[in-house]
Amino acid sequence: MSRVTARRRMRRISPTGDIQRPDTLAVEEPLEIRIGGESLTVTMRTPGNDVDLVHGFLLSEGMIGVAEEIMAARYCAGTDDEGRQTYNVLDLTLRNPATSRPRNFLTTGACGLCGKTALDEVRTLSRYPIAEGGPVVDTQVLAGMPKTLRSKQFLFEATGGLHAAGLFAADGTALAVREDIGRHNAVDKAIGWALRENLVPARDLVLIVSGRASFELVQKASMAGIAMLGAVSAPSSLAVDLAAESGLTLAGFLRGDTMNVYTHPDRIVAGSSTSSMLA
Amino acid sequence: MSRVTARRRMRRISPTGDIQRPDTLAVEEPLEIRIGGESLTVTMRTPGNDVDLVHGFLLSEGMIGVAEEIMAARYCAGTDDEGRQTYNVLDLTLRNPATSRPRNFLTTGACGLCGKTALDEVRTLSRYPIAEGGPVVDTQVLAGMPKTLRSKQFLFEATGGLHAAGLFAADGTALAVREDIGRHNAVDKAIGWALRENLVPARDLVLIVSGRASFELVQKASMAGIAMLGAVSAPSSLAVDLAAESGLTLAGFLRGDTMNVYTHPDRIVAGSSTSSMLA
Repeated sequence: MSRVTARRRMRRISPTGDIQRPDTLAVEEPLEIRIGGESLTVTMRTPGNDVDLVHGFLLSEGMIGVAEEIMAARYCAGTDDEGRQTYNVLDLTLRNPATSRPRNFLTTGACGLCGKTALDEVRTLSRYPIAEGGPVVDTQVLAGMPKTLRSKQFLFEATGGLHAAGLFAADGTALAVREDIGRHNAVDKAIGWALRENLVPARDLVLIVSGRASFELVQKASMAGIAMLGAVSAPSSLAVDLAAESGLTLAGFLRGDTMNVYTHPDRIVAGSSTSSMLA
Repeated sequence: MSRVTARRRMRRISPTGDIQRPDTLAVEEPLEIRIGGESLTVTMRTPGNDVDLVHGFLLSEGMIGVAEEIMAARYCAGTDDEGRQTYNVLDLTLRNPATSRPRNFLTTGACGLCGKTALDEVRTLSRYPIAEGGPVVDTQVLAGMPKTLRSKQFLFEATGGLHAAGLFAADGTALAVREDIGRHNAVDKAIGWALRENLVPARDLVLIVSGRASFELVQKASMAGIAMLGAVSAPSSLAVDLAAESGLTLAGFLRGDTMNVYTHPDRIVAGSSTSSMLA
């Protein structure tokens, strides 16, 4: 199942000429997630770490809070025209299927978004609220995390086309790095890994993402009890608003040795020792 | 309704010190799309060009093929806690609601993805198949389009955090540029504009996107009958496969005066005159 990259022929056009050669691309394939045989959703993802992905996705959606709530995950036994297993359908058995309903399917016929602020409407309350505490990270250590993330993006090196999400200890150690064609999937794979390792709520970990920080990524961090999110690029307005309200430290534009800290900056300290704040 | 950017306070940390100042961010807010009062979906988008967005979204999903199929689009008359209209719910009246069903909602209980190739399962057949013809674009003109797109990304300049999609004539003229926090939304806004201008099928136009080319973006181009898609970054495997099968010219890594052409390269010609191929 090493279907994470694929080769396709292409023409490279440049001022010095025009050559035909194969190019290595990131694989994108659909993954259908089913619960007890019923289709829940289809996500376009890069194959690999699918079990992490579904754990992270269900955690993000508020459907599960601990790994044991997924009792089994198995690939549907289908094959494509050439007789190969597709590995594109993952069927989950949940401990409490009746109480596990996804956020996005709860839309009602009532006026919904009309009379609410944007944040009220779309947020899902986390089982793991971020209170005081969380990691205390030295500015230089935090500034170095994107470089570490990049050094572990093996698929990006080959394809130039993948997002990454990494979970770091406060001392800068990378615990898990996951790559995917989709930003959300990369984060789901990382927090799904943490859930399966019994590290959720991941109060002392830092989540680093290779791109921008949207509302959805702050939401995913918050659902995993993560108190610090760092992004290489810009955050959105709603990402900042949700981070502020959730108690999460949000840093953006982590580039070189500079960064913008939008919310709860107290966890980022110049020259601090590596430790946790009083929890 | 100029809610496209917002100011938030932040701390800028750099080796030379630590200052507090406001930062300009891209606004991200939910848009709920309803059909005759029934909720269809919620997308996180940057406000502005919402009517283009819903036209493009419904075209992409195969729910409509011409602008007249949306008979009315009106914002739901709700207000938030401070009495402001939220502009976050757009209710559409369709000419044929019964026959307009979105692709993503057609998932059945049958084995679905198991026995099919990835492409078979997720693609939606376009009303506007791309046959012969389409634009013929000079390599230098195509190479220059991302620069033109960038020069019209006014929100990106302010925030550093927005994707863009532009529709170009074969001679390099930018006809419409749309920005959004979401890659898909930017493309939906651009093709929704084209639909409302009666330019769909947009056989002679080139769609340029500021980021990567995923399956979904090729799908959207193909649903609008667009025969050429250029991306500043990498395509995915499935994007290339769909472009090859649909007859669409897909160029990636459009940077400076170089590019990689993955499919149907005949429409890109060195030193050609600006014209259309025999249609």
